[in-house]
Amino acid sequence: MRHLLGTPQLSRDEAIQILDTAAQMAATQEREIRKLPTLRGKTVVNLFFEDSTRTRISFEAAAKRLSADVINFAAKGSSVSKGESLKDTALTLQAMGADAVVIRHWASGAAQQLAEAGWMHGHVVNAGDGTHQHPTQALLDAFTARRHLVADPDGKGLDGLKVGIVGDILHSRVARSNVSLLTTLGAEVVFVAPPTLVPVGIEGWPVTVHHALDEAIEAHELDALMMLRVQRERMTGGGSAFFPSPEEYTRLFGLDADRMGRLPEHAIIMHPGPMNRGLEISAEAADSPRSVIVEQVANGVAVRMAVLYLLLAGEESAE
Amino acid sequence: MRHLLGTPQLSRDEAIQILDTAAQMAATQEREIRKLPTLRGKTVVNLFFEDSTRTRISFEAAAKRLSADVINFAAKGSSVSKGESLKDTALTLQAMGADAVVIRHWASGAAQQLAEAGWMHGHVVNAGDGTHQHPTQALLDAFTARRHLVADPDGKGLDGLKVGIVGDILHSRVARSNVSLLTTLGAEVVFVAPPTLVPVGIEGWPVTVHHALDEAIEAHELDALMMLRVQRERMTGGGSAFFPSPEEYTRLFGLDADRMGRLPEHAIIMHPGPMNRGLEISAEAADSPRSVIVEQVANGVAVRMAVLYLLLAGEESAE
Amino acid sequence: MRHLLGTPQLSRDEAIQILDTAAQMAATQEREIRKLPTLRGKTVVNLFFEDSTRTRISFEAAAKRLSADVINFAAKGSSVSKGESLKDTALTLQAMGADAVVIRHWASGAAQQLAEAGWMHGHVVNAGDGTHQHPTQALLDAFTARRHLVADPDGKGLDGLKVGIVGDILHSRVARSNVSLLTTLGAEVVFVAPPTLVPVGIEGWPVTVHHALDEAIEAHELDALMMLRVQRERMTGGGSAFFPSPEEYTRLFGLDADRMGRLPEHAIIMHPGPMNRGLEISAEAADSPRSVIVEQVANGVAVRMAVLYLLLAGEESAE
Repeated sequence: MRHLLGTPQLSRDEAIQILDTAAQMAATQEREIRKLPTLRGKTVVNLFFEDSTRTRISFEAAAKRLSADVINFAAKGSSVSKGESLKDTALTLQAMGADAVVIRHWASGAAQQLAEAGWMHGHVVNAGDGTHQHPTQALLDAFTARRHLVADPDGKGLDGLKVGIVGDILHSRVARSNVSLLTTLGAEVVFVAPPTLVPVGIEGWPVTVHHALDEAIEAHELDALMMLRVQRERMTGGGSAFFPSPEEYTRLFGLDADRMGRLPEHAIIMHPGPMNRGLEISAEAADSPRSVIVEQVANGVAVRMAVLYLLLAGEESAE
Repeated sequence: MRHLLGTPQLSRDEAIQILDTAAQMAATQEREIRKLPTLRGKTVVNLFFEDSTRTRISFEAAAKRLSADVINFAAKGSSVSKGESLKDTALTLQAMGADAVVIRHWASGAAQQLAEAGWMHGHVVNAGDGTHQHPTQALLDAFTARRHLVADPDGKGLDGLKVGIVGDILHSRVARSNVSLLTTLGAEVVFVAPPTLVPVGIEGWPVTVHHALDEAIEAHELDALMMLRVQRERMTGGGSAFFPSPEEYTRLFGLDADRMGRLPEHAIIMHPGPMNRGLEISAEAADSPRSVIVEQVANGVAVRMAVLYLLLAGEESAE
Repeated sequence: MRHLLGTPQLSRDEAIQILDTAAQMAATQEREIRKLPTLRGKTVVNLFFEDSTRTRISFEAAAKRLSADVINFAAKGSSVSKGESLKDTALTLQAMGADAVVIRHWASGAAQQLAEAGWMHGHVVNAGDGTHQHPTQALLDAFTARRHLVADPDGKGLDGLKVGIVGDILHSRVARSNVSLLTTLGAEVVFVAPPTLVPVGIEGWPVTVHHALDEAIEAHELDALMMLRVQRERMTGGGSAFFPSPEEYTRLFGLDADRMGRLPEHAIIMHPGPMNRGLEISAEAADSPRSVIVEQVANGVAVRMAVLYLLLAGEESAE
């Protein structure tokens, strides 16, 4: 693996290798071995064209625990813009000796452009590009699901599991990354979304679609339910042509204690964060013992350690 | 000590332990031993909901000299807000493995809420919450006063000393933190403030109050005089109902060479910084040999090293 | 050398020492020895009163590769302003144990003021002050030119070389720093600029001036051509009294493939970045094999490592 651009590019073996490595990383963290010397002398640049403090500090913590140097480059607000500028930014980071660039960009395809234009020798990690991909989020979701739902998980995928993804699928890079990865790992995906927030061409996707959460809970034995974050700024006053009003959204798609009670007993509740408590998820559901939302955050650090490790460690011998 | 939330929670023994540890930290710094391996592998997060470059870099320098990893999280301007969001931010930091969270918040009580809600296993250090507490500032003030005014200070408090605090007591977390700590350590506190800028219920505080600096200098043998920073934005044009005009403030409460000359010869001048030279303190007073203002900044790093050390070092055995 | 304030203060021997040290630093980087323990325990503060992500991360990378701790202090937007505040900021950084302060300021002379006012024991590195000096930029330019144009460069200057500098000389600290350094190192400087963008008193400078790029290319055998960045915000609509319109600028001063073809075959193309492609330089020129623009960025890290090393390493014995 040379870059991590999206989950569609990952083979089943590669995905499982990342999850297994993340399990080792999580184990060192749990044994309070907080600092591994693996990436000493490597430089990881966080190149963020969009604010995302959570994702940035997760990558920063991951890199620092592997003893890499981290340089934060908040491109947002600076004079940097799209197109040629991304090129010059890449050439600059390359020249400064960035071994890996973690890029977050508002434009779909930015990470791929950065990786494939030949501007850099370094490795590119996509930390979210437009409405396109957010692969480390999907990997941490898969890691969390595997830990909870697969016995003796090392080396295994998610075969036979059924995962519901609820919300604005149309605009969600998290949903897109999850569909590919879950399918690659053998799970089945169920979408729950308003008809207006389902992508055109959904018929060609390996998913079942429902337009109400109650219906999906009744129709499937879901092992995991992933609630997407609602982007409130997309909801106009009483509901736009595309987006339901908050009240309507909660009524049809929100997870509360009652709906949670109708899931199989072993089912887990996931959310990429930050949550809108009371909108897509009630406080009771968010804080219930079935919720693995906080654990997802911790697993995010382990997964990002694994990705940086697999991309950067041992590369001297490979070059 | 599990958290450092405010000075009222500190016993005399705890306070003296911090000051003594800070003295050791200061000694290593003075001997140019700049990097101690003590907190290697620990992660300190600076969670700042308000800008405060000085306090942030003081904590950052302190943590780095103890070899901790530091992650800066400027919550100001991000979508993070009060209430439930503080909870989710806490859960996130916890999950990412923050061993200590240094929090600066505009809301009084935020640090305590963070520490006591049970969201985190990590240690909480209050770096200023609203108009409530700023304990490391009071500790560095006490450390500086002890160094200058107490012979052979190790193990000792500030018994018998008299400290004047001048300015907007009503809005000052520095004043509140100092009153508790100074009293705990055996010192006597004299407030000097306009009647409108004294808190309601001041009668119950263990302090004497004056409404003009000249009066206080005449009435007491002050060993230290602490000038608070005037928040210029609180002063409207010609003086509001609450706040005097700048000219009137300087006339009644400003420290100049003349007033300084009427203090006891050994008295020291303190200021938490940044100063409004010409307003609450004249340049002559600020730069005089009696001024220990710059030393306060250096002592701030030593005190913060001590606090982080006492909270974080040796905790493996404690858990 | 105690500070690096500007290139006029550098003797030929000092300049060559920096370039030779930078060559050693570059060599360690190229051999993938990324982390030198030299400045372990030292603290470098990046004090930036103006945004400049490129310069900041170049210094940050340089300091981290020498194992120094780096603290970023973005003064822009904070309450810090000129005059006394710079003093108090300096006293604060000094008190916090800053061994070196890398300062970027919008006011010409700020670095010198910081260094010479006696506020700090630490070393001051000018990372650009107003329209005055930007010495590390000139040093990395000289380093790059020497590498390409001087055989067996170690210990040598730039004697006999001819360097063209094209653009808004009037407002350019890069041009000012380059003129002094190039002259000190034995090179000859040719300015190309609109008459309105040449400084008053240019007659006293050791340079030849042209008002069109074609004319300069014809009149001189240029070994290197340095294109300055156009500050677009200075160009009003159809061209102000001072500044030509973008079209006129490109026509008279822009470097395209045709003009590049009329340079001597060995001549190199330089630019301090970030480029306005299509304005002062065409994409073809920017990306041609003669362009050393990306290499300049890499050399910037090596030169800044050299400067920090020469200022900070071995200072224990010197004090």
